[in-house]
Amino acid sequence: MGLFTKGIKTLDDLFVHTLQDIYYAENQITKALPKMIAKATNAELKQGFERHLTETEGQIRRLEKVFEMHGHKPKAVTCPAINGIIEEADEVAGDVADKEVLDAALLASAQAVEHYEITRYGTLIAWAKQLGRDDCAGVLQENLDEEKATDAKLTRIADSKINQRAA
Amino acid sequence: MGLFTKGIKTLDDLFVHTLQDIYYAENQITKALPKMIAKATNAELKQGFERHLTETEGQIRRLEKVFEMHGHKPKAVTCPAINGIIEEADEVAGDVADKEVLDAALLASAQAVEHYEITRYGTLIAWAKQLGRDDCAGVLQENLDEEKATDAKLTRIADSKINQRAA
Repeated sequence: MGLFTKGIKTLDDLFVHTLQDIYYAENQITKALPKMIAKATNAELKQGFERHLTETEGQIRRLEKVFEMHGHKPKAVTCPAINGIIEEADEVAGDVADKEVLDAALLASAQAVEHYEITRYGTLIAWAKQLGRDDCAGVLQENLDEEKATDAKLTRIADSKINQRAA
Repeated sequence: MGLFTKGIKTLDDLFVHTLQDIYYAENQITKALPKMIAKATNAELKQGFERHLTETEGQIRRLEKVFEMHGHKPKAVTCPAINGIIEEADEVAGDVADKEVLDAALLASAQAVEHYEITRYGTLIAWAKQLGRDDCAGVLQENLDEEKATDAKLTRIADSKINQRAA
């Protein structure tokens, strides 16, 4: 939706708009992750990104299911937030000379992506419940649970391996 | 730092760069919050934003302290992530016709901002500890604790008031 169109009139409209926003974001993430996989040196981090790419593809299918359940065709709207987060990840990665430090930077960028998804799914679930769509909330909760688990796993890899090697 | 300068060679460089990034972000947030305060209708939400503005000013002082403790002058580097998050908040707010729905949108945008700060402070604290700077980590932890408390408070306002009124 463009500026000043005032196209969002109800919480239902806002829910659908935010669903389109996260649908765009997840699709952008499937494009960003292969580049991060290529840049990562640590095997565990590389595997973590690969696993998350497969997971993200499954999350996109779930979002398409929620669109359908709610009577809408899957549609993406440009999400400046995820574009900014990915742009920053690219910039920082391009600035790092050392491989171990690059791993630490890539991991931190991945956690910034996860946190964006966590906040959006949290909001979408709250709105779905408010709209009486516990069925949609349930599907979105599966995505949220995966994002939280990925973020926790990244923290474990950071603490146990990546940050020590980078230091 | 610009693209391809490869200016980040050590974890210490990455720590300082990320400190400059969040310093920029916190400063942008002090510019964005007054607009959100002006747009919010619900008194509790408005007060929550006002309180967070005061809090953010204190967080900027703490960041300046960390710069000093670590032997650097406070400096900001453009953070495309926060710019994207704030741009999206503005866009969505501009699209919403109904006041109660606008409150729900503003609250969700504020939580996206909080989550960006939470992930960056989490990373900075881990890196500070790795670098043997527990003193810097302690100051950054104060900011992280405030961001988490603000996010939790926003969730409570959303669940108890804003989302019901928007529906």
